[in-house]
Amino acid sequence: MSPEEFRQYGKQVVDWIADYLGSVEKHPVRAQVRPGDVRAMLPAHPPEQGEPYEQVLADMDRVILPGVTHWQHPSFFAYFPANASGPGILGDLLSSGLGVQGMVWATSPACTELETVVVDWLAELLGLPAHFRTDSAGGGVIQDSASSAALVAVLAALHRTGTDGRRTIYVSSQTHSALEKAGRITGLVAGDVRTVDVHPETLEMDPARLRALIEEDVAAGVTPALVCATIGTTSTTAIDPVRAIGEICREHGIWLHIDAAYAGVAAVCPDLRWINDGVAEYADSYATNPHKWLLTNFDCGVLWVADRKPMIDALSILPEFLRNAASESGEVIDYRDWQVPLGRRFRALKLWSVIRWYGAEGLREHVRTGIALADRFAELVAADPDFELRAHHPFGLVCFRPLRTDALELMERVNASGKLYLSHTKVGDEVWLRLAIGAPATTAAHVDAAWAALQAAGRRISPGRR
Amino acid sequence: MSPEEFRQYGKQVVDWIADYLGSVEKHPVRAQVRPGDVRAMLPAHPPEQGEPYEQVLADMDRVILPGVTHWQHPSFFAYFPANASGPGILGDLLSSGLGVQGMVWATSPACTELETVVVDWLAELLGLPAHFRTDSAGGGVIQDSASSAALVAVLAALHRTGTDGRRTIYVSSQTHSALEKAGRITGLVAGDVRTVDVHPETLEMDPARLRALIEEDVAAGVTPALVCATIGTTSTTAIDPVRAIGEICREHGIWLHIDAAYAGVAAVCPDLRWINDGVAEYADSYATNPHKWLLTNFDCGVLWVADRKPMIDALSILPEFLRNAASESGEVIDYRDWQVPLGRRFRALKLWSVIRWYGAEGLREHVRTGIALADRFAELVAADPDFELRAHHPFGLVCFRPLRTDALELMERVNASGKLYLSHTKVGDEVWLRLAIGAPATTAAHVDAAWAALQAAGRRISPGRR
Repeated sequence: MSPEEFRQYGKQVVDWIADYLGSVEKHPVRAQVRPGDVRAMLPAHPPEQGEPYEQVLADMDRVILPGVTHWQHPSFFAYFPANASGPGILGDLLSSGLGVQGMVWATSPACTELETVVVDWLAELLGLPAHFRTDSAGGGVIQDSASSAALVAVLAALHRTGTDGRRTIYVSSQTHSALEKAGRITGLVAGDVRTVDVHPETLEMDPARLRALIEEDVAAGVTPALVCATIGTTSTTAIDPVRAIGEICREHGIWLHIDAAYAGVAAVCPDLRWINDGVAEYADSYATNPHKWLLTNFDCGVLWVADRKPMIDALSILPEFLRNAASESGEVIDYRDWQVPLGRRFRALKLWSVIRWYGAEGLREHVRTGIALADRFAELVAADPDFELRAHHPFGLVCFRPLRTDALELMERVNASGKLYLSHTKVGDEVWLRLAIGAPATTAAHVDAAWAALQAAGRRISPGRR
Repeated sequence: MSPEEFRQYGKQVVDWIADYLGSVEKHPVRAQVRPGDVRAMLPAHPPEQGEPYEQVLADMDRVILPGVTHWQHPSFFAYFPANASGPGILGDLLSSGLGVQGMVWATSPACTELETVVVDWLAELLGLPAHFRTDSAGGGVIQDSASSAALVAVLAALHRTGTDGRRTIYVSSQTHSALEKAGRITGLVAGDVRTVDVHPETLEMDPARLRALIEEDVAAGVTPALVCATIGTTSTTAIDPVRAIGEICREHGIWLHIDAAYAGVAAVCPDLRWINDGVAEYADSYATNPHKWLLTNFDCGVLWVADRKPMIDALSILPEFLRNAASESGEVIDYRDWQVPLGRRFRALKLWSVIRWYGAEGLREHVRTGIALADRFAELVAADPDFELRAHHPFGLVCFRPLRTDALELMERVNASGKLYLSHTKVGDEVWLRLAIGAPATTAAHVDAAWAALQAAGRRISPGRR
């Protein structure tokens, strides 16, 4: 495709996306297709001759859109949001257009240096400590996800223990499954990912139980490597007591990783910085995902470390073909040693685009809007005696449950309607519904309509309700 | 940013990229900046207020482009190509515009099902065996890179051994460092990634040495888990004897992973399918990267497995919030269990765009052009007694060295000129230069100019040369 053909088709694709974004509400939120439906509409074999790009765009409407669950729909409330935004899309487009691969500084210095600048910017925007900045012994890096960030933290922590003997890592029952997966990937055997009890109401990790487990393990000759504390758990946005956990970690020389994948970006609002209490003093690593609630297209997760050395020592292997003068000078960062894969896209462009377009003010406004809408929804739930509201944390997630209707049946009914999409979790044996607000297109009207749809569905399932 | 603002700025960005692609030759191939130059041009702090997008585009010209090493430049010959193409960029743009996250089938069925279709298409285009198709016990998946594909293969292989005891994996001195990294990540200790000797001339893994090592390890009570054979090594595009290696793996029940990251896509040409001899009979997994030589923007690596079960067993963890009826029906693929991270972009769109725009014919033509240009360059080298040509494989990489000049000095001189960019490797103690052809914009004129620049630089360094 020549540059001029790209110019022509590129504008058609931009129009297609602008039309899509402007009309996303006309689609059912959750795809209505059944397994195999999309595949059945596609040719079984690849084309022998090339096709005009118009045919791809026609198939986007005919084949792809009906099979898409619309994460940018204003009534998408399932999981946490995966925000896209105009500047996020454009930053990704610039990255694709340049087509550079920034595995080491020398293969595109701007890819590395813009990344150090924007992760430092983000650390400042979130009020994170100076030792997470890249001009310190620590630094930040963009990963594809908080799963990968957790894996890197576990690898650094295991390396830092300086032993190949039995090591353990500590999570709670509320910790994201990515930590268990990281444990499994890094070769920990079953039981070495230790689950600490949580407070039965708040679902926060119990520091006394953590201490007891660690002391038990140390006495048994095991080396505790890492504790993961979560700020805003996936299930209910619970906040682990980072300071108390951090003190225990410090006593025992254990790596403290903070998984703030969803909620961390809320600290763009100074009045929410308290969620990070203890991070500056105790955290060895901290992960949050601008691709969740900060308007930056997936994938863009940021990992900061207080000391980059154990991470680089754990991950660096230098084959001859990557040797170069800049790396050997020690003056540059080679981000390949800060991640699992070798290759890397120029992801900093999208975060840069987003921060510049919205500014700190715009980012705060976006987070505050989501929180205000969640508060609005929580008030609606609280006022209905047929529903129970779960005490909630100051983010965009509301957990609630119907008292006279099966929660999963209610959820399936509204999700199947295509009007909104929400998800569920379990606390003990109780099923709770999760309504996560945070898409930039969501307004009070969408929240009110979601509530009306839930109430109506509840009444249809259990006509005896008030 | 509203849809209408996106429409407006999106077209500006498309114009910017079209202009860039149309004029990429005016830039020095390798960035001419020094460490810190890019950073110094950027503000130390994020903006408080948002900025017009025009300012981002202006900074693309002012700050970013001077710091970019231009991977799409027709005279970029370092590393393997990381091809971008118009339809690749547009497919990525469509993915960004939709902003879906396809961690499980239910979160966007089209994301999963288009992926199964395009990886099946690619398997057909490359003549890979039917048991790699997703309608078999095996299947294909898009990973970010061959590093991650190798890590997944190692995890599946380790899981399949059914033991937590000492396991080993086997590579050669020519295997990509990603395998050593995968070994380290998965908790293998030093020495458990075993290096098999290669033939001193061809640099192919020696099956007799492989067999001896395996038998030695088995006798010592170790469980051999995986052998990685490479089709087209990074250093010199050597091709390991897959069939002979496969027979040994079969005898001992060892997982055979094929790393064909760069060269695998050459099999779009039927006359090159011999490079995969033995794959159909013996390979448990096979990885190749359309993002290298097949016109699909980074990141797009494809991993196929002959049996998906050990991979899924190794990687699947199901938290409550991801439970859904479709997954429980067993009728769908949840690609989160085929990779390390949980979240995933809609990467199939770019591979789909590329295959449809070029068609099988266009893809073959692209590969053949690269090979013909490499042959042309090799002939030029062979005709000059001041240079030595290394016997080369039928791909786009030419390895050669100057006989009267220091190879690294020659390389640094031409790279610093900005006229072309090449890299080096070592075979034993000998330094060889690597010139990898494969960018779609590269023509015979660029290859001839590269050769002229190398000859001239050689003459300047060693005026006594003929």
